[in-house]
Amino acid sequence: MTMTVKKAVVLLSGGVDSSTMLAIAKHEGYELYALTLDYSQRHSIELESAARVAAQMGVAKHLLVRTDFRGIGGSALTSETEVPKEGVTEGIPVTYVPARNTIFLSYALGWAEVLGAPDIFIGANVMDYSGYPDCRPEFLKAFEDLANLATKVSVEGKIKFGIKAPLLKMSKSDIIRKGLELGLDYSLTWSCYDPTPGGRPCGACDSCRIRAKGFEEAGATDPLAE
Amino acid sequence: MTMTVKKAVVLLSGGVDSSTMLAIAKHEGYELYALTLDYSQRHSIELESAARVAAQMGVAKHLLVRTDFRGIGGSALTSETEVPKEGVTEGIPVTYVPARNTIFLSYALGWAEVLGAPDIFIGANVMDYSGYPDCRPEFLKAFEDLANLATKVSVEGKIKFGIKAPLLKMSKSDIIRKGLELGLDYSLTWSCYDPTPGGRPCGACDSCRIRAKGFEEAGATDPLAE
Repeated sequence: MTMTVKKAVVLLSGGVDSSTMLAIAKHEGYELYALTLDYSQRHSIELESAARVAAQMGVAKHLLVRTDFRGIGGSALTSETEVPKEGVTEGIPVTYVPARNTIFLSYALGWAEVLGAPDIFIGANVMDYSGYPDCRPEFLKAFEDLANLATKVSVEGKIKFGIKAPLLKMSKSDIIRKGLELGLDYSLTWSCYDPTPGGRPCGACDSCRIRAKGFEEAGATDPLAE
Repeated sequence: MTMTVKKAVVLLSGGVDSSTMLAIAKHEGYELYALTLDYSQRHSIELESAARVAAQMGVAKHLLVRTDFRGIGGSALTSETEVPKEGVTEGIPVTYVPARNTIFLSYALGWAEVLGAPDIFIGANVMDYSGYPDCRPEFLKAFEDLANLATKVSVEGKIKFGIKAPLLKMSKSDIIRKGLELGLDYSLTWSCYDPTPGGRPCGACDSCRIRAKGFEEAGATDPLAE
């Protein structure tokens, strides 16, 4: 009798969403291949968080791929534009990185093809990030269609790729509740776009505000805020 | 009276195809933004060729984005697998790089969004590279659909992206004839996957063979073979 373990490539930033998603994929029984893209973020704290979360979740492999978005520009996260601190506003935020999820999914697809992993997990979410076009279900469906046309293994009929976004319609508090239920240690995760010189969350950027609200609504305490 | 110059992002490797495509886009009157992805190729000669061709064509900007495919693996071009020297064979070659064109187009899309460039040129070709799934028209169409769902500028109705593949159904000799007609200096281009220690084309890899056949059928002399 042969046991087949299903592999998944999981895009992991080290934030609340992708870390929780990794815990969900683990719970679903996948052999986990975590992929972190280092796109010249301002702070390496995110990358260290990703490594710690991957270790806690017992991934088969954690791959860090270095790349460079600075030349492309167009975002407060990859250029010298100020990270906004005035609270979450309407519309597409300046922290939007052009084509980021398209680029991330493309790398994940390349690795998934090499690994023979049919499923690719991405922490896209339409509740808290309604402003990002590349978090919408129609975008994810279009990428899935593309993936099945783009690769040798899919064209040869060996793999049908699926893009999985289990967080898509979960609120931040739903996500945090789920992660706590699955034993995720949120002290390992990181959310802040603009940490203090001492390496603490700023508490004022969009990402800090969304995280704080999520923990509050989940009736839980953020270990990073203690 | 306002003159509007249409911008294009052109994926440029420095090989025969993408260099000719850059000449075609120039001839069509675009303001040119050449994008070269350095994906840990074995040889930097390709990158130098891209820079020289971009300079000859008078591009507005040539952007080199460094990235890393080695961790992903799966190709003779990005790993320690031997480059085959026994001639062009049937099927998908081992030089196929998983999801390469998907990744390349994703970066081009990010830059095109920042620049406000509606058109993205890729040197995909179904004649000489029939084995690559991500050179087929259905793949390119799927990426175009994705691009128009993926980005802020397209979702807001400011830009409709088009993926242009003018070489799609041209033979190598057609491409070379076209480039010569447009004044492209092929001594600036590079094709070999596995150059000699002295920095000359090997003459035996698939890419050298296809190039030699193309020049022969075009009735022209390859300046690199002189």
